[in-house]
Amino acid sequence: MDEHLDDILATVRPLDPIELQLLDAQGCVLVDDITVPVSLPPFDNSSMDGYAVRVADVAGASEEYPAALEVVGDVAAGAAEPLHVGPGQAARIMTGAPLPPGAETVVPVEWTDGGLGAGPVTGMRARSLAPEAASGQVQVYRAAEARAHVRARGSDVKEGDRALAAGTVLGPPQISLLAAIGRGTVRVRPRPRVVVLSTGSELVQPGGELAPGQIYDSNSFALTAAARDAGAIAYRVGAVTDDAETLRTTIEDQLVRADLLVTTGGVSVGAYDVVKEALSYVGDEDEPGSGMEFRKLAMQPGKPQGFGSIGPDHTPLLALPGNPVSSYVSFELFVRPAIRTLMGLKDVHRPRARARLTADEPLTSPKGRRQFLRGRYADGAVTPVGGAGSHLVAALAQADALIVVPEDVTAVEPGSEVEVVLLG
Amino acid sequence: MDEHLDDILATVRPLDPIELQLLDAQGCVLVDDITVPVSLPPFDNSSMDGYAVRVADVAGASEEYPAALEVVGDVAAGAAEPLHVGPGQAARIMTGAPLPPGAETVVPVEWTDGGLGAGPVTGMRARSLAPEAASGQVQVYRAAEARAHVRARGSDVKEGDRALAAGTVLGPPQISLLAAIGRGTVRVRPRPRVVVLSTGSELVQPGGELAPGQIYDSNSFALTAAARDAGAIAYRVGAVTDDAETLRTTIEDQLVRADLLVTTGGVSVGAYDVVKEALSYVGDEDEPGSGMEFRKLAMQPGKPQGFGSIGPDHTPLLALPGNPVSSYVSFELFVRPAIRTLMGLKDVHRPRARARLTADEPLTSPKGRRQFLRGRYADGAVTPVGGAGSHLVAALAQADALIVVPEDVTAVEPGSEVEVVLLG
Repeated sequence: MDEHLDDILATVRPLDPIELQLLDAQGCVLVDDITVPVSLPPFDNSSMDGYAVRVADVAGASEEYPAALEVVGDVAAGAAEPLHVGPGQAARIMTGAPLPPGAETVVPVEWTDGGLGAGPVTGMRARSLAPEAASGQVQVYRAAEARAHVRARGSDVKEGDRALAAGTVLGPPQISLLAAIGRGTVRVRPRPRVVVLSTGSELVQPGGELAPGQIYDSNSFALTAAARDAGAIAYRVGAVTDDAETLRTTIEDQLVRADLLVTTGGVSVGAYDVVKEALSYVGDEDEPGSGMEFRKLAMQPGKPQGFGSIGPDHTPLLALPGNPVSSYVSFELFVRPAIRTLMGLKDVHRPRARARLTADEPLTSPKGRRQFLRGRYADGAVTPVGGAGSHLVAALAQADALIVVPEDVTAVEPGSEVEVVLLG
Repeated sequence: MDEHLDDILATVRPLDPIELQLLDAQGCVLVDDITVPVSLPPFDNSSMDGYAVRVADVAGASEEYPAALEVVGDVAAGAAEPLHVGPGQAARIMTGAPLPPGAETVVPVEWTDGGLGAGPVTGMRARSLAPEAASGQVQVYRAAEARAHVRARGSDVKEGDRALAAGTVLGPPQISLLAAIGRGTVRVRPRPRVVVLSTGSELVQPGGELAPGQIYDSNSFALTAAARDAGAIAYRVGAVTDDAETLRTTIEDQLVRADLLVTTGGVSVGAYDVVKEALSYVGDEDEPGSGMEFRKLAMQPGKPQGFGSIGPDHTPLLALPGNPVSSYVSFELFVRPAIRTLMGLKDVHRPRARARLTADEPLTSPKGRRQFLRGRYADGAVTPVGGAGSHLVAALAQADALIVVPEDVTAVEPGSEVEVVLLG
């Protein structure tokens, strides 16, 4: 199993970078260090709604002995040509507006009479309702130190600083920073396009009618959802009948939109195992790296597995077994890491933990096979749900962890410590 | 702050359910209990590629004394009319194929000569390459108990069982189960459509040129990304200038596609605080529940906040402050829970933890305000990043937690235990 995973991760390479609009890059990995092109804030600005004044003009001001200043106008955020504040003057200033020349500090509006002449106010009246407040006189009731309530140019980041390092995953706060420094687009590894198809002549699309011997196709739905969950753009092709030529044609058709192909079913030792039949000889002997290999792994579920690459671009293809639980567990252990490698993520595996086994009886496991049982994990303990059967979809839907029983262990006693894969 | 959150959560109601295609329902909450309409598997079927036989016919079989049986044909998965297996007969059977009438058990192909007469085989040859293997004779080298390698009808789930409970969030394994029981569509609460717009005449779209006094709009990008991250379908309207009529018109235009509106900026005490100006009087006094309320909360950052509902459908609107850190923190504390309430999720808040403060000097916090500082959390310890300034976007991009300093605490010593909100 480890060899198989190693082979996959040694073959799959991060996708080539692409310049994307900021919001299209959400969840993607930065390719380059990002340098700050312009200091933030780009200019000294007010952190309060208030009055921009000279320090000396408000020195010693109190409610009893307010400083009376002449209001020379408004400085709104975005104001292109700030006023000049001279001795004895004040400019009414809004949060984020540039500190006007001449002004040395900002007094919040709550420390003034707001120009109304009736004691301290709690805020300004809207400009549109009271335009006269942009002129006249203001009483200031408290002194302010130099540069109080002023955010200095470059106090957030400075031009030339490294804003974000290559390899950073872009979540909302990183997108916030990129926008703040003016980046409209950014170079990232794109989300991989994953094409999912299930195989089996017995498969009927959910919602249809089952004839005798038929079952509903669940793998193509489960793995499309799981691929999205891993970060991919996933396309569900649906079920293909067990006919090698049909399967080959379908896969060839899909290559144009696939960075990775995932099939389920048809990889075991039966006479109708169409994936094995259709893909065993697709490789070109003169082309190194092309072709598929089918293996039996020492694991349960998920013993039969295929991996290789097909088509002119050597698109990687993972051929998973068809039992629903086998295909889902195989996805978690092999496909998810492959998708996350394509994305350029460093951390490609699900987190693991040690947990105490809570169970009524020992877990049994076949010798020589690493078993992955479904369980529920909470507070350091894990409880198995359902049995080992690879057709037990209902139990899988209750699980949030896989219990790992190593190859050389055939029984695990209740209370023992086990390794779990947290499905998150 | 708690009152404000309570008011929001008391007003916002889960969205009405909608019947969605299975893959469109990923991440959504089930509205009804789902009952199994047909037992799974729907029929007894083989868990192996092998031969369906009668128990008596292989009793005592060994490599030395194999049982020789007449192969009556193939039973492939999806086979509509299975063969009948009589005494002395075997049907070649594939994994998932129905156990044919007359057969009592399955012997794996590895326990047979596969019809080749040359000892145990490791698998079947493809039907298309070796059609003769569906007839002739097979040597069986091991006995099998009744119903060995047979998955019984209903052994996964039984008709009438509850497959999933109302309130379940649909991840890949739940989608797998729904598909398996034949559900092509499912009734869930849809993802809320969240319209994000920032306000401010100083705002320039990233990628553009900054004139003096201007800054780049980052809030509309950050909150659109954060809304998606919370599970919403988010629409970024971008920056609106500080003009009440323009803002009112823009918001009215957006109502048609909004389950929730989020604005940033213009909610404080300045003379150009357009959101407050435009929305303070939108409510209809005769319509209970309509209208906006603007408050000053005892928190930092995020003191000025607006909340209410607008338009004929009382669409909820959260008006956040405009400083980038204030708006992001406000989103995490107020908008994210609102989005997750609209989705019908039970767990609407970010997880919290206790952590040991790692810092060179005490954290200080204003008395009477609950402070949310940015930090990095790992292994039970949290380290502050950047200062308290609500314009410090670069530090926010390094943070993965908010450090909570309660209202009555003005200093936190290094080594103390603090509460943290994990931003995940």
